[in-house]
Amino acid sequence: MKAAAPTLMIGQSGGPTATLNATLAGVLRAAAAHPGIGRILGMRHGIEGALRGDFVDLSDLPKERIDRLVVTPGAALGSCRYKVREQDYERLLDLFREHGVGYFFYIGGNDSMDTCHKVARLAEANNLDLRVVGLPKTIDNDLARTDHTPGFGSAARYVALATRDAGKDLEAMATFDDVSILEVMGRNAGWLAAASVLGKRSPDDPPHLVYLPERVFDIERFLEDVRREHRARGHVFIVVSEGVRLADGTLIGALDGVKKDQFGHQLVTLSAGAGQYLARLISERLGLQARANRPGTLQRSCGSTLSRTDADEAVRLGEEAVKLATAGGTDVMMTLERVSDSPYRCEVGSAPLAEVANAERLMPDKYIGADGTSIDESFFDYALPLIGGELPPYERL
Amino acid sequence: MKAAAPTLMIGQSGGPTATLNATLAGVLRAAAAHPGIGRILGMRHGIEGALRGDFVDLSDLPKERIDRLVVTPGAALGSCRYKVREQDYERLLDLFREHGVGYFFYIGGNDSMDTCHKVARLAEANNLDLRVVGLPKTIDNDLARTDHTPGFGSAARYVALATRDAGKDLEAMATFDDVSILEVMGRNAGWLAAASVLGKRSPDDPPHLVYLPERVFDIERFLEDVRREHRARGHVFIVVSEGVRLADGTLIGALDGVKKDQFGHQLVTLSAGAGQYLARLISERLGLQARANRPGTLQRSCGSTLSRTDADEAVRLGEEAVKLATAGGTDVMMTLERVSDSPYRCEVGSAPLAEVANAERLMPDKYIGADGTSIDESFFDYALPLIGGELPPYERL
Repeated sequence: MKAAAPTLMIGQSGGPTATLNATLAGVLRAAAAHPGIGRILGMRHGIEGALRGDFVDLSDLPKERIDRLVVTPGAALGSCRYKVREQDYERLLDLFREHGVGYFFYIGGNDSMDTCHKVARLAEANNLDLRVVGLPKTIDNDLARTDHTPGFGSAARYVALATRDAGKDLEAMATFDDVSILEVMGRNAGWLAAASVLGKRSPDDPPHLVYLPERVFDIERFLEDVRREHRARGHVFIVVSEGVRLADGTLIGALDGVKKDQFGHQLVTLSAGAGQYLARLISERLGLQARANRPGTLQRSCGSTLSRTDADEAVRLGEEAVKLATAGGTDVMMTLERVSDSPYRCEVGSAPLAEVANAERLMPDKYIGADGTSIDESFFDYALPLIGGELPPYERL
Repeated sequence: MKAAAPTLMIGQSGGPTATLNATLAGVLRAAAAHPGIGRILGMRHGIEGALRGDFVDLSDLPKERIDRLVVTPGAALGSCRYKVREQDYERLLDLFREHGVGYFFYIGGNDSMDTCHKVARLAEANNLDLRVVGLPKTIDNDLARTDHTPGFGSAARYVALATRDAGKDLEAMATFDDVSILEVMGRNAGWLAAASVLGKRSPDDPPHLVYLPERVFDIERFLEDVRREHRARGHVFIVVSEGVRLADGTLIGALDGVKKDQFGHQLVTLSAGAGQYLARLISERLGLQARANRPGTLQRSCGSTLSRTDADEAVRLGEEAVKLATAGGTDVMMTLERVSDSPYRCEVGSAPLAEVANAERLMPDKYIGADGTSIDESFFDYALPLIGGELPPYERL
């Protein structure tokens, strides 16, 4: 019977996270146990690989390998940044028919949810019995209709820990170094940069200044901020989003050259980045000793700073997606719905893909201080549970 | 009696590490319990603070605070990069007399051991009963006469884990990204860059190319290496030491501007760095998509990737230093002497400061592959125990 049941096809897309594989593991666990699902077919490098016929059969993956997936960062199937073209959708429908696919699961961010929605509509228009479920993941935490996205909690924990650790380093070197800068990912949304405050217990703890893409960057005001904070304690810890822009829209990290990807997003990978730009600016204009740390992909793929809460939720979303789809649900993205802050509790729900696709959720004003460089206390209630609670204490002499 | 016993003065110097405070904790534990030691006086920011009279009394630090020090990265007393002048030594002698100091302990790297040796000679010349002990720490692992240095094991574990994590990220994105570069600290010694191989189990695992300061960097040969490795598997993971130099001695990371510190060392903090330079080079000359991660101070001050072995040894060195000095030892640096690789066992010893000061231990040729970009198998026997053994396994689909 199970052999005759429809195939579940699953892929991963967009920037990897520490828990992108945890969601895959959740789907595999639930799907393997479900009589309504036949083969489980993994797409290599998402739709890009599928279009080339590149699949891996995951139907009989042993339990211990699935368990190990939960703690393996990256995207074990391979991910992609591929803009799906009109003719690709027709080819996808052929692939679904060819492989007897009844379930199409895609784990990804904004662009992927748009792709999922188009697949769902096309399947419906072609009378194909296909259940399409989008599974959210992004360290950017910028998807609509969900309290937060899997992957954010672990990246946020990384950033909170990195701020505290590099902050300890700066305090130690304060007679030599003046300014330490941490550049954090986030093209348009500052959620991850904001998470840098989550280890902060006193005003002297790092970070002292946080620059978010939600606020226009002003060079002279920035220099004034740094001057003031340096006078106050002799050293300044700065967190800056890679996506911070001048009033005219120019990325500060790309002042020495901007490239765009196929979605029209500005890429900053080949510039030295926002942090390095600020370090130079501080050195040249203020004569202070500044250095920039740019952990880059480490912040999204660090296996040593996994948030337990994030990993658990990522697995749960995968498991619940199987339940929902086998019960008839389609054209939806799985969501996390917060029931309470303390004790923290989230339930799994779903939202129509049409309401999610191409919507982008930035940091709301309520979380950003009036000065534009601090984070409101209320953000702790929101974000602290997501990184797994208070960080273990450090000693100060 | 104990009140009348001589004071122990202790300071921290040079770049922080994840276990610099563990050695301090070891000293505090042993000194507090020793009847021959009176007050314990911490120097704020090492000799730089001491010369200003900036001390903190550590005699009665509660046990739980000492325990927390063991897992706190940075330098809890504050560190410094201060070149001691002739007149400073006279002032130090006055401070020792004023505070009844009988024990001078200094935790640091190469420059600090030189300072310690000068202090010991000066005390002797002035008939001052002072026991001087240098306690080694440096992530660079470049001190002479010790099997390895506290701080290296944890930084090496960080680099091994970071290579594996950023490598997983690159594998996931291999249809989009071609090259991922990790820039690792190490001005002259490549020990830390070499540690990037410690999670490698097959030739396809990262890193694929390692560039050490021990080998002259040749731009054209580098481009040929990258081209070849990219052809072989479609993506290339590169680890580069910040200290890699062209044949004429120019740091590749400082091709856009070099500064020197007071010791005459080239500083690369204000350049975009070796990794960023290579990423640009690859993009411009090979047309490949490259990105550089520069974890900077995170690699030396990360509290989440502590090597248990490193922390234990750092504490032990501190404890043994107290035993040695109270038994009459002086003008020595504490050392780690390897007894066996498997099972790994190191004993604590000591070496004359004169033999350590200003000597620098680079990676021996036997650990560097004939191609100059790979690390010999024998390095695993040396370094794997120091990071706490094999890394926990990841899954690959």
